[in-house]
Amino acid sequence: MLEGRPIDLNSDVGEAYGAWPGGPDDLLMPLLTSVNVACGYHAGDPSTIRHTCRASVDHGCVIGAQVSYPDLMGFGRRFLDMQPAELTDSVLYQLGALDAFAKVERARVLYVKPHGALYNAIVHHEAQAQAVVEAVALFDANLSVLGLPRSAVEDACHQAGLRFVAEGFADRRYRPDGTLVPRTDPRALITDPDAAGRQALELAEWGVESICVHSDTPGAVDIVRTVARMLVSDGYRLEAFALR
Amino acid sequence: MLEGRPIDLNSDVGEAYGAWPGGPDDLLMPLLTSVNVACGYHAGDPSTIRHTCRASVDHGCVIGAQVSYPDLMGFGRRFLDMQPAELTDSVLYQLGALDAFAKVERARVLYVKPHGALYNAIVHHEAQAQAVVEAVALFDANLSVLGLPRSAVEDACHQAGLRFVAEGFADRRYRPDGTLVPRTDPRALITDPDAAGRQALELAEWGVESICVHSDTPGAVDIVRTVARMLVSDGYRLEAFALR
Amino acid sequence: MLEGRPIDLNSDVGEAYGAWPGGPDDLLMPLLTSVNVACGYHAGDPSTIRHTCRASVDHGCVIGAQVSYPDLMGFGRRFLDMQPAELTDSVLYQLGALDAFAKVERARVLYVKPHGALYNAIVHHEAQAQAVVEAVALFDANLSVLGLPRSAVEDACHQAGLRFVAEGFADRRYRPDGTLVPRTDPRALITDPDAAGRQALELAEWGVESICVHSDTPGAVDIVRTVARMLVSDGYRLEAFALR
Amino acid sequence: MLEGRPIDLNSDVGEAYGAWPGGPDDLLMPLLTSVNVACGYHAGDPSTIRHTCRASVDHGCVIGAQVSYPDLMGFGRRFLDMQPAELTDSVLYQLGALDAFAKVERARVLYVKPHGALYNAIVHHEAQAQAVVEAVALFDANLSVLGLPRSAVEDACHQAGLRFVAEGFADRRYRPDGTLVPRTDPRALITDPDAAGRQALELAEWGVESICVHSDTPGAVDIVRTVARMLVSDGYRLEAFALR
Repeated sequence: MLEGRPIDLNSDVGEAYGAWPGGPDDLLMPLLTSVNVACGYHAGDPSTIRHTCRASVDHGCVIGAQVSYPDLMGFGRRFLDMQPAELTDSVLYQLGALDAFAKVERARVLYVKPHGALYNAIVHHEAQAQAVVEAVALFDANLSVLGLPRSAVEDACHQAGLRFVAEGFADRRYRPDGTLVPRTDPRALITDPDAAGRQALELAEWGVESICVHSDTPGAVDIVRTVARMLVSDGYRLEAFALR
Repeated sequence: MLEGRPIDLNSDVGEAYGAWPGGPDDLLMPLLTSVNVACGYHAGDPSTIRHTCRASVDHGCVIGAQVSYPDLMGFGRRFLDMQPAELTDSVLYQLGALDAFAKVERARVLYVKPHGALYNAIVHHEAQAQAVVEAVALFDANLSVLGLPRSAVEDACHQAGLRFVAEGFADRRYRPDGTLVPRTDPRALITDPDAAGRQALELAEWGVESICVHSDTPGAVDIVRTVARMLVSDGYRLEAFALR
Repeated sequence: MLEGRPIDLNSDVGEAYGAWPGGPDDLLMPLLTSVNVACGYHAGDPSTIRHTCRASVDHGCVIGAQVSYPDLMGFGRRFLDMQPAELTDSVLYQLGALDAFAKVERARVLYVKPHGALYNAIVHHEAQAQAVVEAVALFDANLSVLGLPRSAVEDACHQAGLRFVAEGFADRRYRPDGTLVPRTDPRALITDPDAAGRQALELAEWGVESICVHSDTPGAVDIVRTVARMLVSDGYRLEAFALR
Repeated sequence: MLEGRPIDLNSDVGEAYGAWPGGPDDLLMPLLTSVNVACGYHAGDPSTIRHTCRASVDHGCVIGAQVSYPDLMGFGRRFLDMQPAELTDSVLYQLGALDAFAKVERARVLYVKPHGALYNAIVHHEAQAQAVVEAVALFDANLSVLGLPRSAVEDACHQAGLRFVAEGFADRRYRPDGTLVPRTDPRALITDPDAAGRQALELAEWGVESICVHSDTPGAVDIVRTVARMLVSDGYRLEAFALR
């Protein structure tokens, strides 16, 4: 019998592009239960996607689609005022492309996590939130959407009948209203592994189903390792949310 | 009972990109049985792909993936010396992306037709021919590959156990050895509809399963209409090869 | 002796990209005094820029840089939330690239007109307005900036000591506050040549130094011809503002 | 009085793109006399170019344009069969863009060094070699072209009256015919600093005017430092070729 309350641990992977390297995917994947794979719009050339899907399956990680605005130069970190229909179609394109590689490894894309500026936009931007959700529903209504709780995208999922999965960030400081301290603030990042672990415990206690550690936070591997250990010590069972 | 020998009629569609227009797809589709849909690498933004897949289904056309080298600026018409593994992964990416839109319209991608310089390269370039075929086999070994007969890609299909479908061009002149008169030669194009129709009859007689008319040949709609009429008059039955 | 009050007539040109066509540049240029040449970020591959600069010089048009957000897929028509430093550097890049082609034709870029969503953003967005102006000042403080009067970009030019040139649109309806009726409104466009001509006369009377007709407005060539004729009949002298 | 025979030391810099890092430019520049700055076609977003030009000037390095095929995904390392006119215009575009940033730092682009697959192509490909040289001549006939001696590009420079500067690679093994052992061969790279230094001495003795160490060779900084020391010990004077 499986024991403990389940909790998922996710991070961004596959963020190389051509000759440019991504993060420490090979070190992170053994520690993670879900991986957000870049789909080519902010990072992730086809061969990187291929390799990343293979490694994800090898490490038993569930594959999610890290969809983005089309913006390689800005790494998807700049808001782009796309029309909802354009955004829906761009998300569909990325989902289909990634899923082709997942299938080659006898896996499937099981969830969607928007990246960067798109992630932040759909906390408040209802039209873009609905556009992302519409793409997921069109592609496969059994997929989940991973995002910030109490957001426009959560509302849009509920309206569309999609499963929304609330995540929290172990390595980012929160403001009292539940939003993140912006990256421009020097206090934005939590890089001390124990502090990140404590925050992960609080977030899990609060009710998030998944804990994220950004793969580009300094010391990400140590942070994920400590977060995982503290969650398990506290009685959690690390398990991909999409498998429940 | 269906009568007549079957023959397919294909053309390139969905070659718009953002604000730039594509060809006369709406006029061509009612006349075609198969359409080669651009997948984003030489043309075809996501919303164009969406619209094109919908129109294809509305007109009863079978959807094929018109995969390309990544080269928007050159419209896929310039040879790019990709490594075979890169090419395989790039074709997989395009196939997956397009298929997501086909599925939204309750259809599927049923064949692959490489575009432009890639089409020409894999007549002779064995490594790239095998790379394209490997991508198709990985994606779905039931897909066909549409290409020039007596080519490296035909050989690669046979070796991989994929169905190869030979096509002929009604609107391009051939050299005695079966290769095309290059576009740099002023005699390359056949723009007279009757001449194109006669050539289509010869090609069908010779044994090709599909006749292509390029959507950017001047007068393409009239050419396709005449080719279709002459084929039917001669006892052929217009039918998508992928449905046989 | 030159007679009449001077007025400039500008339009967007060089908006082809690879195999995709641009507008009717060859018909417009004989009628224009200034041309806004696309620089590669929303349109304009290098060979198109080369050809466009040559044609501009042949027709005696002054060359301006039509700088844009980096967004080929969106034709520069979608707001992109670039950091000011990124935007300054992106404008510099485009300015330098275009000027290389102008110099080949023994001309120079003499002004900057931001394109599409960037044009609209810097009516109100002070940081982006200042970023554009900073790029122009860094490149050559003798260049003018062409834009909407009473805008953030006008203010930024005055602060930086750059010449700002107010333009009005003959083919777009204005709201009482001096802003444009948005393109999503069916009344946005003025396509009747005489109506456009009358509006051009009002704008010139009001004090703009340049009249713009969009090259993609239906009937653009007729509109420009009529606008030019009516301006001349009313005593204006068509002359590039940058030559004054 | 300056003593010693002059020799130049060059390397590739500015090869970051958006969020992706480049090489150890800050450590290399103090040791180099000339830097080949990426121009945006294989690497180098505008802000990277800006920063790189500033650092180049701060370190007293001469700025050269590292022009490339348009291929971010392939980092310019894949042959692209561009038409000569397209290639000329693409090189002009990159030259103009980079020079705008050089001018901001009160410097200028003083030479051109083609990158990656383009570098290799124009050793033998006469039409592309002439196309590159034509772009340089159109932009500024006082610029030099840095390349492999006894190559098509050397011939093209002589025909066009441009200065050609022969370079040798300290960190790459040569075949007896003067061409490089290809990177696919495990013996291609020389990573031992002393061995690289000895090869640099041989190349200088043979007559090259510039020694290149690739910034992405493992241990590049140590290699450059050793090469510089050994050249100086042997009586050479490190000096940018473009200043002679």
